[in-house]
Amino acid sequence: MEIPGQIETKISKLFNIRYPIIQAGMVWVSGYKLAVAVSNAGGLGLIGSGSMKPELLKEHIQKAKLNTTKPFGVNIPLLRGDADELIQTVIDEGVKIVFTSAGHPGKYIDKLKNAGCIVTHVVPSVKYALKAESVGCDAIVAEGFEAGGHNGIDEITTFCLIPQVVDAVKIPVIAAGGIPDGRGMAAAFALGAEGVQIGTRFAASVESSAHENYKKAIINAADNSTVLILKKVTPVRMIKNEFSQKVIEAENRGATREELLELLGRGRERAAIFEGDLENGEIEAGQCSGMIKEILPASEILYNIVREYYTTKNKLV
Amino acid sequence: MEIPGQIETKISKLFNIRYPIIQAGMVWVSGYKLAVAVSNAGGLGLIGSGSMKPELLKEHIQKAKLNTTKPFGVNIPLLRGDADELIQTVIDEGVKIVFTSAGHPGKYIDKLKNAGCIVTHVVPSVKYALKAESVGCDAIVAEGFEAGGHNGIDEITTFCLIPQVVDAVKIPVIAAGGIPDGRGMAAAFALGAEGVQIGTRFAASVESSAHENYKKAIINAADNSTVLILKKVTPVRMIKNEFSQKVIEAENRGATREELLELLGRGRERAAIFEGDLENGEIEAGQCSGMIKEILPASEILYNIVREYYTTKNKLV
Repeated sequence: MEIPGQIETKISKLFNIRYPIIQAGMVWVSGYKLAVAVSNAGGLGLIGSGSMKPELLKEHIQKAKLNTTKPFGVNIPLLRGDADELIQTVIDEGVKIVFTSAGHPGKYIDKLKNAGCIVTHVVPSVKYALKAESVGCDAIVAEGFEAGGHNGIDEITTFCLIPQVVDAVKIPVIAAGGIPDGRGMAAAFALGAEGVQIGTRFAASVESSAHENYKKAIINAADNSTVLILKKVTPVRMIKNEFSQKVIEAENRGATREELLELLGRGRERAAIFEGDLENGEIEAGQCSGMIKEILPASEILYNIVREYYTTKNKLV
Repeated sequence: MEIPGQIETKISKLFNIRYPIIQAGMVWVSGYKLAVAVSNAGGLGLIGSGSMKPELLKEHIQKAKLNTTKPFGVNIPLLRGDADELIQTVIDEGVKIVFTSAGHPGKYIDKLKNAGCIVTHVVPSVKYALKAESVGCDAIVAEGFEAGGHNGIDEITTFCLIPQVVDAVKIPVIAAGGIPDGRGMAAAFALGAEGVQIGTRFAASVESSAHENYKKAIINAADNSTVLILKKVTPVRMIKNEFSQKVIEAENRGATREELLELLGRGRERAAIFEGDLENGEIEAGQCSGMIKEILPASEILYNIVREYYTTKNKLV
């Protein structure tokens, strides 16, 4: 297979990667296998620590180091009770690329920068982008309403979010949400992004640690298969199923945050994504699921995106 | 002022216009003055009949014909009780470009095609795009979740909607929702669109018939200033104000469709857009309002978009 030419931007240079394409850190999906596959092919693979205890994260980092000499990173959701330990693990293991999300990086940035880390924070609006820049983040992921999993409350879409964040900050911006292919990458670059973070497309890859049922739910999705629910708790985008229907009915009746938390219970992400329970689990996935038709090796996904990026760019009138 | 070079696509050829940029038909905003200004500058101006009785529409069409020799069109919301009369008016006055929205064009397509009209239908999902194509529409406007005013129920964003509609139909696709500038136009083209329909940016133009208060509300908006409400009635995107806050509180309490209809009452679009009541009216506007900083003449808006389109395209790595 011919390997497509490199794409050089501030983001590819920041991370020293061939293509400014980041594989999102995703719970129950992106262990070292997926991260290594993406990094070895020239993107930036992220281990998603959101579903890992510190010990397990350590194991995944060590396996990643054994399996690639290329840069890779770790995503850390800062709202985790043990975020301190996760961050200490990353530093102890010598990981130099950290993506933080779901929280404010201000508390941890000095520690990470002192350890020599490049820190990128995920934001859903201009306000949080400015905040991340002001504390010293090196880059920003601006993630739109169409993204899978946890989402911002302002519902700002990728089309509106990227240019406004690009206009507001000086550090480079990575676009996320709704980008499964090279057309989306070219569109994101037109809006001013210098990199893309891609989740759902890589969740349906061979190296993804998700359950086959979950991968197939993405492959079988249509344009209108996902829905954003639980806005009174933490907004989350998932593929519609019996559970989401129950939540929507409760929300339409005016259920309180407490009632919704009880209905949500615990372990629904794991149930859907890792154990394959498509009725009762949270099938977290982006709105672009309808554009994903095959489970493919991560390297093939990456090369297809790059090739289509070039084709798209050259076709513009 | 130097006039930028033309952009030729299937859409510019279909309508015989210099730039494949359509000014959306908007209630209380796009009378003949705005439509003529856009058409004279090389785009396609649309008279928005949504806030007009047939007699008034006739007057606007006649004034448009007196003020431009260029192609212009009329937008007709098909859910209007007097849609038949509006369509008859358009045919009687010899308008050859009709954009239909909010309803199904199947009932009217033969009549319009027999009168020599080019018919374009506005859709929020792949299903309705296929339906519009199957009855014989010449083009489609695929309008994303970020668009102002009335909106689809599936909340599909421009980033996800455009490529899926482009892949599904053979007729050319015009992108709408979240596009205020040339970056957005280039992004929409990367996603496969051959034209863009732009509403809010033209609503804040000199020639827009909207109230100054309404135009200023757009100019003053931030990235998170709009909200999609009234999902149990007809989803509508507007700039947040006292009225939207009341609706959100009612929705959070579980208000029924009937209760929401009563709260909505009548005439709120007119109140905000035409009369300038920013507290109690529906300030219908797109999520890209945060990117609009000045009230400008329509021709300048159009030329700026085209120039920025070319700059953006040439900057892509």
